[in-house]
Amino acid sequence: MAAVEPPPPPNPTPEPNMNLREDHLNPTPLYTRIRLATPSDVPFIHKLIHQMAVFEKLAHHCQATESSLSSTLFNSPPFQSFTVFLLEVSSTPLSLHHPPTLTLFQPIHKTFQIPPSNPVSDSEELLFRTSEGATIAGFVLFFPNYSTFLAIPGFYIEDVFVRECYRRRGLGGLLMKAVANQAVKLGYGRVEWCVLDWNVNAISFYKKIGADVMQEWRICRLAGDSLLSYGQPNY
Amino acid sequence: MAAVEPPPPPNPTPEPNMNLREDHLNPTPLYTRIRLATPSDVPFIHKLIHQMAVFEKLAHHCQATESSLSSTLFNSPPFQSFTVFLLEVSSTPLSLHHPPTLTLFQPIHKTFQIPPSNPVSDSEELLFRTSEGATIAGFVLFFPNYSTFLAIPGFYIEDVFVRECYRRRGLGGLLMKAVANQAVKLGYGRVEWCVLDWNVNAISFYKKIGADVMQEWRICRLAGDSLLSYGQPNY
Repeated sequence: MAAVEPPPPPNPTPEPNMNLREDHLNPTPLYTRIRLATPSDVPFIHKLIHQMAVFEKLAHHCQATESSLSSTLFNSPPFQSFTVFLLEVSSTPLSLHHPPTLTLFQPIHKTFQIPPSNPVSDSEELLFRTSEGATIAGFVLFFPNYSTFLAIPGFYIEDVFVRECYRRRGLGGLLMKAVANQAVKLGYGRVEWCVLDWNVNAISFYKKIGADVMQEWRICRLAGDSLLSYGQPNY
Repeated sequence: MAAVEPPPPPNPTPEPNMNLREDHLNPTPLYTRIRLATPSDVPFIHKLIHQMAVFEKLAHHCQATESSLSSTLFNSPPFQSFTVFLLEVSSTPLSLHHPPTLTLFQPIHKTFQIPPSNPVSDSEELLFRTSEGATIAGFVLFFPNYSTFLAIPGFYIEDVFVRECYRRRGLGGLLMKAVANQAVKLGYGRVEWCVLDWNVNAISFYKKIGADVMQEWRICRLAGDSLLSYGQPNY
């Protein structure tokens, strides 16, 4: 079977504005922290990926399980291979440190005054509650890519996702910015991702932050039975 | 400065036929070997990248040096990060083994009966001569990518390049097939690369081998000053 799944878009509903809205009529403090995911976060990552698949109406193509995520993520130090940042939110201040990964990445904190969030069921919210009492609101999965012309690495963002009840507050942009910030810290040359050509709001946002949307290039994908067939060692 | 360089296409002049031509009027045996590159191959890789940049009329954008390649490649075991396969050719049989990387990858050998190669200057040919007496004819640079929906890695092919005098013999396809073969061996889900939308011959070849050419997706790239600006830690 040839692959039928399109690549999940980074940030399917990107925000036109990077800054969280500030509503001074009913301001509610929202404390946010972006930190490296650890193996113990796999249940959260799994739930986020499935929410993303449902949002994209591609749930039938989502084969990720906690087991498959555990065996394929966290096999290399962060940033050297597949890396996940989690976005946590809380109505009370979050710890300034996240000890397991502190030497590898300093968590990024920001506090916003925002309007009350969209309604969300308590039962769903509980699924995303951490042991520290914070709530997982989204994630970004990225990994190094390479430019032979620059002879330096970059980062490719495979997915950015923010749970529905936390959207329209620029949190997806916050996750993308954290990746860009890490790329700059490491002296990397590029950050790349994909977007659907009809997603004009996303394209407008990406252009606004200075990204080139490359019109002439097409992604080719060999998968499923075609890959098995072409990849046979019958040279 | 925003990035102006388009991503180098994998195999800019792909072969419509995977099999080397066999010319029985003037058959000349060509022994080929695909093996893992090692740090001592950096001078060859550097020259190949520059030939590729010249071929693509993008030499002015090629900043790769032996030093920058040395410091960014070979920092991880092969296949876990940026990986280079080299294609060697010879008119005499090549050693069945390439000891430095034998445990990581078994070199792939194939012998063809082919018509005489295109004219090439002896001085250029000498630049690509290995200590074993073989000639470096091309390379492929690839690295792992990741599908969150499949929760398994794949490979992304950044570049495939075959020197001009060895083209039109399917050697680019041989390099791509070696990557696909390695993906299958590792149980990976996909092999992906990019192509220019007007390169109809390449697209035809890729479709023939079973690849999907995804029409709706566009690559977004943040680089240069735009990356530096967006990646500042002023959250």
